[in-house]
Amino acid sequence: MATLRSLYKTDDRFELNSNFNVDYVIHYQIPPEESAKAEAAFVQLIEALTRVGLATEVRRGAGSSVLVFVKIASENLLKQQIYRYRVQDWLYGVRTSAPSKDLNTYFEDEPVVEAERLRLVYLLITKPKAEGGAGVTPRLGQWKWVSSVFPLHNHAFNRQWLKQWSQKYFLDENDINDIRDKFGEKVAFYFAFLQSYFQFLFFPAAFGFGAWLILGQFSTLYAIVNCLWCVSFFEYWKKKEVDLAVQWGVRGVSKIQHPRTEFEFERETRDPVTGELVKVFSPLKRLQRQLLQVPFAIACLLVLGTLIVSCFSIEIFISEVYNGPFKQYLVFLPTILLTIFMPTLTTILTNLAEKLTAHENYETQDSHQAAFVQKIFVINFIVSYFPIFLTAFVYVPFAKVLVPYLDVFQVTAQHFTTNGKLETKAFQMDPDRLKKQIIYFTVTAQVVNFLVEGIVPIVKRKVFKAVKEAHTEITQKNVHEEHKDPEEEAAFLARVRNEAELDEYDVTTDYREMVVQFGYLSLFSVIWPLTACSFLVNNWIEARADAMKIAISSKRPIPWRSDSIGPWLTSLGFLSWLGSLTSAAIVFIFSNDPYGPDGHPSNIKLWALLLSILFSEHLYLTVQFIVRYVIGTLDSPGLQKERAERFAMRKFHLEETLGEDFAESAAEANFTGGEKITKEALEEEARRASVSGQAVGPEQAFWQRQRGAAETIQIGRGLIADAVAENKTKV
Amino acid sequence: MATLRSLYKTDDRFELNSNFNVDYVIHYQIPPEESAKAEAAFVQLIEALTRVGLATEVRRGAGSSVLVFVKIASENLLKQQIYRYRVQDWLYGVRTSAPSKDLNTYFEDEPVVEAERLRLVYLLITKPKAEGGAGVTPRLGQWKWVSSVFPLHNHAFNRQWLKQWSQKYFLDENDINDIRDKFGEKVAFYFAFLQSYFQFLFFPAAFGFGAWLILGQFSTLYAIVNCLWCVSFFEYWKKKEVDLAVQWGVRGVSKIQHPRTEFEFERETRDPVTGELVKVFSPLKRLQRQLLQVPFAIACLLVLGTLIVSCFSIEIFISEVYNGPFKQYLVFLPTILLTIFMPTLTTILTNLAEKLTAHENYETQDSHQAAFVQKIFVINFIVSYFPIFLTAFVYVPFAKVLVPYLDVFQVTAQHFTTNGKLETKAFQMDPDRLKKQIIYFTVTAQVVNFLVEGIVPIVKRKVFKAVKEAHTEITQKNVHEEHKDPEEEAAFLARVRNEAELDEYDVTTDYREMVVQFGYLSLFSVIWPLTACSFLVNNWIEARADAMKIAISSKRPIPWRSDSIGPWLTSLGFLSWLGSLTSAAIVFIFSNDPYGPDGHPSNIKLWALLLSILFSEHLYLTVQFIVRYVIGTLDSPGLQKERAERFAMRKFHLEETLGEDFAESAAEANFTGGEKITKEALEEEARRASVSGQAVGPEQAFWQRQRGAAETIQIGRGLIADAVAENKTKV
Repeated sequence: MATLRSLYKTDDRFELNSNFNVDYVIHYQIPPEESAKAEAAFVQLIEALTRVGLATEVRRGAGSSVLVFVKIASENLLKQQIYRYRVQDWLYGVRTSAPSKDLNTYFEDEPVVEAERLRLVYLLITKPKAEGGAGVTPRLGQWKWVSSVFPLHNHAFNRQWLKQWSQKYFLDENDINDIRDKFGEKVAFYFAFLQSYFQFLFFPAAFGFGAWLILGQFSTLYAIVNCLWCVSFFEYWKKKEVDLAVQWGVRGVSKIQHPRTEFEFERETRDPVTGELVKVFSPLKRLQRQLLQVPFAIACLLVLGTLIVSCFSIEIFISEVYNGPFKQYLVFLPTILLTIFMPTLTTILTNLAEKLTAHENYETQDSHQAAFVQKIFVINFIVSYFPIFLTAFVYVPFAKVLVPYLDVFQVTAQHFTTNGKLETKAFQMDPDRLKKQIIYFTVTAQVVNFLVEGIVPIVKRKVFKAVKEAHTEITQKNVHEEHKDPEEEAAFLARVRNEAELDEYDVTTDYREMVVQFGYLSLFSVIWPLTACSFLVNNWIEARADAMKIAISSKRPIPWRSDSIGPWLTSLGFLSWLGSLTSAAIVFIFSNDPYGPDGHPSNIKLWALLLSILFSEHLYLTVQFIVRYVIGTLDSPGLQKERAERFAMRKFHLEETLGEDFAESAAEANFTGGEKITKEALEEEARRASVSGQAVGPEQAFWQRQRGAAETIQIGRGLIADAVAENKTKV
Repeated sequence: MATLRSLYKTDDRFELNSNFNVDYVIHYQIPPEESAKAEAAFVQLIEALTRVGLATEVRRGAGSSVLVFVKIASENLLKQQIYRYRVQDWLYGVRTSAPSKDLNTYFEDEPVVEAERLRLVYLLITKPKAEGGAGVTPRLGQWKWVSSVFPLHNHAFNRQWLKQWSQKYFLDENDINDIRDKFGEKVAFYFAFLQSYFQFLFFPAAFGFGAWLILGQFSTLYAIVNCLWCVSFFEYWKKKEVDLAVQWGVRGVSKIQHPRTEFEFERETRDPVTGELVKVFSPLKRLQRQLLQVPFAIACLLVLGTLIVSCFSIEIFISEVYNGPFKQYLVFLPTILLTIFMPTLTTILTNLAEKLTAHENYETQDSHQAAFVQKIFVINFIVSYFPIFLTAFVYVPFAKVLVPYLDVFQVTAQHFTTNGKLETKAFQMDPDRLKKQIIYFTVTAQVVNFLVEGIVPIVKRKVFKAVKEAHTEITQKNVHEEHKDPEEEAAFLARVRNEAELDEYDVTTDYREMVVQFGYLSLFSVIWPLTACSFLVNNWIEARADAMKIAISSKRPIPWRSDSIGPWLTSLGFLSWLGSLTSAAIVFIFSNDPYGPDGHPSNIKLWALLLSILFSEHLYLTVQFIVRYVIGTLDSPGLQKERAERFAMRKFHLEETLGEDFAESAAEANFTGGEKITKEALEEEARRASVSGQAVGPEQAFWQRQRGAAETIQIGRGLIADAVAENKTKV
């Protein structure tokens, strides 16, 4: 791997600054046991690529693999492709104006940006043959030896990017726009979201700090302000998202769907509209399959819930009941159990979620992704919040009732003690446990997570790389002379081989992290008002760490477009709403001493608890309604841009049809009307009718009684005089 | 007035079948005390109309008024206007394709329908001068003597319409489409809604009948099914509405806003985008004014609530406590009080709502209308549902606690009795009161309402007309000979004079009625499951009565467009949601005997009540989510139409740019790509580079190592062989 140092200290090495005009690299694995088949498929691969107009070069890869370098063969083909996709955008309403039909001047006016070029070449490589692509789908069917198709990093940009970001406190619009130009809107939306969230966090951080000093835990005021903030942020982001989409010219791209290659159709029918053959899968059948989500969610809850409850009980038993030997070691037992089992179970369930989503058999990538996100949200919800729910709503109110049941551990443990008698102490509920837990999840876990996500892969790869390099050194000797890397390419090829080994960047992981974090804030921050302060610090680092992750430890992502943060928006809304329920419940339960004299939670009046939840929820919904309305009335740069485009269009179109001068005023005055010479026109018409000598019907006669406005006025005055006279005679 | 008989028995009279090519009639009043001013304004009126290209004729009106007949002077102007509005539609995304620039052939392909013509002429008359209209705003400022601007009924159509509808059970799409062509989409949407609602009612009517027979009152099953039905209907209509809008080509017209003439701006600024002067009113200031809605709602609740509670108490006292003389008459006292005060108070509050809405000072007619609807919904909500809430949640559970306080009436009444002693009986709660009340609201009130709405105006006008005709007979004698109606026009003018006296049709009233009705069904039908049966019958008549109201007892409405039922949709959603709360509460309270042994409602466990409400509401929200998703997956004619249009556009556009054959396949195959002769192109490029003799940089060199696909394949095979060999040596 090009290490951070090698890449980002020496700026001037050619092989790091140039991509040799390569659009994509296809990493092709050759499994020794199937080399003949792989070779045949390789030939097909090159043929397929050539057929759609791509130029190819092949070079040796790391281990037993080859690297196929791909670029679009002629600029003309590129232009044609881009033109077509822009027409499509226009038809779907993504662009306001149709692309000009003169291709040559058109591309001078609206040049192709890097992300657009890369996106289209990727589509050309991966689209099915029937739709004009080469149909190369990595790791699938005939292409199972294609391990990845990836663009090359623009290291000059990356270097600049990381340097800039590490030196500034706030990211601005240009920073996000740069990301958009290089990595596409999908990634840019993540950073825009992160940035908006970061800025919004200043308020709860400051207010939370104040509340921590003055109000303490479980403050009703803090809960209300926090809920208000959640609503505001959520609604703000919904508007901001649309605005960004307009500014980036991608509003509505989510309507243009990329078909999923893995989609299995039941039958083909002719579309009544277009006459094309369309692949159909019964939506009812899919609905049935989607119902499997219910048992899936229950399974998640049971599996993960059991683990969490068990560890929780053990922990309580050891820390608050048990008083025997090895206590100082045994307290780590639940943590160890969790660390072992939780990732395992999560992985198993995530795989299950993937299978389930595949089974639901969506036509498009977006709907597949959304369905998958829904499922992993369930898993994450349980893993992240269930322990706190357990403490807040079971342990604290019912501890004294439930702890005696922990005797089961005592009995078990007695088998292992020599004297058959376990040393215990009287159970004492730890009133700070809830706060400690929140601090663990919002501070410790975030730090741990940062380390796992940011540092571990780098270390891991360093080790792997050392091993691999030693290996490659040896193999290099066996390569035929003609296949050795040419000197001027050697460094570049080494870099590409490294990039081929990197992980693919998945923006979903990063979104998930942020959404889960937002959940802690909305659901539980009333327990520890400093939560937002911790997140503020964390997210400043997070943005830089994510940038580094993309630039250094991932393959360059395919620059997909997107007009929203997609399915995560629903999750955010859900957490924000749920916050109104949990906050109310927590404040109600904890702000007074919940225990009656006998230690039972009799002081908690169920009806009052329910009433406060009900009240809080509906207050939340009302506030949401108002905030939505208020935000809806505000203007924004995106809306202004849209208006400007529409105005330009209107002027242009009217100019073409009705002449320039006229159009100017018409466009301004919102479609003025009026023919100047109407009186003459009218009289002319009348004259024509009388000249033609036709019998004048009652209808024509009706309109010819008063010739022009002057006569109408004259007669009208007569009628008015009549009416007045009439009135006088009556008086 | 042209009575039903005169209009609809004799089909062949010319003056009833022809509108003399009149587009609009302006009814101009001449108040005797200001006749000079009115005369001057009349001259301005004719001049203003002529200036924008309208032809005018003036005739004597009824009483001291004149009728100005208006038609568009030249077909050319009409075409220009229509062209411009269609361009606007296209720019706002209402039309998929831009109007063709060749005006002559264009109008042959897409002819002008009656509603479109009338709408544009109306806009020409009423739009501000700055925007190219005549700026005539009835009853406002300089035009205060213009009492109305209305199109003439198409009686031939009306006759046919009423005849057809009275003879069929179900309205179909064509019936609605006819209304759309004549009265515009706004009215058509009402009838489409009514029709969908009517069809949907069959299910709750049948199920309700079954429930009434088998399950009885307060059935949990009925409540659940009813809620499900409400959700389904609401979500169905939301989809249907979009679908209709697409089919009618009006999807998105709500974005094209008509400015409100009464809008008062704070300042004018230049729009940064278009450079036009725009009138600005601070949205924050408006928000402050909108906050007045809260005291308004409270005032409504207090005023109407006090009246309702008073009458309610009196009624209970008289019917269930009082046992003295005149009881048989006194029972009518509350009804009389309600009949007198309720309409008065409602009118006052509606006027207040109108003033408040005007004070909120909206820029556009739509937002003004929506804000007004919101306020009258509050009034209607209280008037319609408060009495039932009172019975269900106050009277029944707390009667025994509260009735003793009714002593106040006893004390009052004792003053009026001679012997100073009031005959009373022991209070006995009427367990059927709730059911009786529901039956009153859902049957009796609907019938009464039908009479008030349908029959009374006809009778009223007949009486007025008799009086007026006698009067007109006399005045006719004083009219100058030249101003007397020409014989061939006399009948037509009489008809127009009658139409000028009719009320304006307001679709809001009809919507309100239906929405309130839907509310009874969603909120309270669990009390009396036959509710839907009653509504089914009522709505069959309602549709015909409304048609008659439009055709016979109203001026022809201006054919406005619309893409939705607008603000009523929100009200429907609100009622549907609230139904989940009230149904749960009613079922919970009434399905068991709510009284403890002492008569106090101690049997009602508050926590259980709240829990059942909370549960029911969230079940509702979940079901809504699912139904929305399921309905979202279904295809519909509107969506198909949209797809077809997009496909046609795509094909057309690609044809123009890329040639016909190519476009055919491209449009079908979703933008296929591929240049056939890429290998040659590539080699050509390489040759050119070497011929030009330039120094070949490493980038060019990289792409010239393998000339064409064949060489790439050959080298690739070599590399693969290497890799395999390597592996073998290792083994």
